[in-house]
Amino acid sequence: MAFLFITPTWDTATWVASMRKAAPALDVRNWPQVGNPADVAYTAAWLPPPDVVKGLPNLKVIFSLGAGVDAILKDPTLPAETPIVRVNDPDLTMRMTEYIVLQVLIHHRQQRRIDANQRKKIWDSFPTHAASALSVGIMGMGVLGQDAAEKLRDLGFKVAGWSRSRKTVRGVESFAGAAELDAFLARTDVLVSLLPATPDTDGVINRATIRKLSRKGPFGAPILINAGRGRQQVGEDILASLDAGELHAATLDVFAVEPLPPDSPFWTHPKVTVTPHCAADSDPDTICAYIAQQIERYETGLPLENLVDRLRGY
Amino acid sequence: MAFLFITPTWDTATWVASMRKAAPALDVRNWPQVGNPADVAYTAAWLPPPDVVKGLPNLKVIFSLGAGVDAILKDPTLPAETPIVRVNDPDLTMRMTEYIVLQVLIHHRQQRRIDANQRKKIWDSFPTHAASALSVGIMGMGVLGQDAAEKLRDLGFKVAGWSRSRKTVRGVESFAGAAELDAFLARTDVLVSLLPATPDTDGVINRATIRKLSRKGPFGAPILINAGRGRQQVGEDILASLDAGELHAATLDVFAVEPLPPDSPFWTHPKVTVTPHCAADSDPDTICAYIAQQIERYETGLPLENLVDRLRGY
Repeated sequence: MAFLFITPTWDTATWVASMRKAAPALDVRNWPQVGNPADVAYTAAWLPPPDVVKGLPNLKVIFSLGAGVDAILKDPTLPAETPIVRVNDPDLTMRMTEYIVLQVLIHHRQQRRIDANQRKKIWDSFPTHAASALSVGIMGMGVLGQDAAEKLRDLGFKVAGWSRSRKTVRGVESFAGAAELDAFLARTDVLVSLLPATPDTDGVINRATIRKLSRKGPFGAPILINAGRGRQQVGEDILASLDAGELHAATLDVFAVEPLPPDSPFWTHPKVTVTPHCAADSDPDTICAYIAQQIERYETGLPLENLVDRLRGY
Repeated sequence: MAFLFITPTWDTATWVASMRKAAPALDVRNWPQVGNPADVAYTAAWLPPPDVVKGLPNLKVIFSLGAGVDAILKDPTLPAETPIVRVNDPDLTMRMTEYIVLQVLIHHRQQRRIDANQRKKIWDSFPTHAASALSVGIMGMGVLGQDAAEKLRDLGFKVAGWSRSRKTVRGVESFAGAAELDAFLARTDVLVSLLPATPDTDGVINRATIRKLSRKGPFGAPILINAGRGRQQVGEDILASLDAGELHAATLDVFAVEPLPPDSPFWTHPKVTVTPHCAADSDPDTICAYIAQQIERYETGLPLENLVDRLRGY
């Protein structure tokens, strides 16, 4: 019985090793080395190319890797009846929170200015501000957004969240729905996007949105951190806003096209930090142990857990 | 009545402006522009050169700037009878915690590797580890150390502290005294020093200490973050350990000589992050408001608060 990884943009050697450790009886393969497609009973995929999953005639279960299932559902050739299991990684929330806290602190503490000074051997003790002087606004207040909000609040930042429905998080102001978006943006010095990928959120981070952000913060212009999905941001608008001084700096983990093409101006823009969609990477050992456990449940006739509802999209 | 700042290594324009705002009636001056020394009734100092404080015949109170009072007590010419007030900044703990959390996360999330990849336009999704895989050890568990330990614990790191006396912090292992130092070092992947400056701690971060740290962490060699005092570290030993692979990386905020001289190898070492003694900078407005309040108390006959005991050294 074969198990196939389909992760075109990942370095999968570690994943294959982890899966072999977690399920020694499985014949673990790595696309494009599929071998005989009829052998493959299980696959774990992230952004599978069209027709690859469809070309596995004896497939029993698809495991969706990564935080959002949009990466697998966007394959239009996905077989309609095969169950999809969302991989449930207990580490995922903590890793996303680490990323958000790290990137907010890099901006707040002006680490990039300190880095540039080190390269020039400049010892510069510039005045700084307290965390309470910076208003962080998180778009998308699901499990990930709420956890990041709490950790930022504990560090002293003024935190608000914006989401479809109102949320109650101690010490975190809640804005809800389209009607309250402008008020949310107007109080936000650092905009963090953790929005899920839905058609509603496509292009939401555009020049008009950026112009509605606060200019009253300690840097005079707002900061953008996008760890949601690339299609939520209009790349040219972000670059134009940076160059016009309407945006102080940006940290982008996601892009409309990934891997980010070598000719993208984001790579070299002095006010942009590019991270390679690594905000909430999963630990291969944890994930593979979970997949092995679900395969064992399925083989012994137990129901699968965390099944994806394709109509709802999660 | 004149007030004199004596802060040879600081950019003091902001401080002078803040003090003028906090106490408009005072004649605020900035060393070396002392004017007539007999005018000066109050001074706020950080590392004053010898004989400067001594040369103020009508001085009533000395305000000690910065977290530790060692910066003022090391002036051997300090007048013996003038009261010294330790400036009590409520922000200080939060700022130090921000710095420690930021620098631990930069190492944990391999931000320097991501930065180098961005410069080379490399999109590299390397496997990462959970915070629970990293054991952080904090030397010096006073108010600052305990707060940083709690925030790191909340982010999922395994945290321990080492101090003279045993501390009780939920979820943080406590090691106490010289007898338990080796056991503390052996379990520590990331060593954070927040030790106060006392003769006991001079040179404590040396090659022998570094060699006792854990090699079982995800990076194979330990990491050092020193935000205590520069005289606690033996610079040549840190460089030798980095070059021998006994130390994976170091973030240094403090140095034996500050500002760090241009010919110091720390500036250009690829494994070293240099920050300009900014870990727990004070907010000029907050500090100056506090100083103005203490001056008003003193002028109206009320006792000074936070008086330094010169014998105890704090």
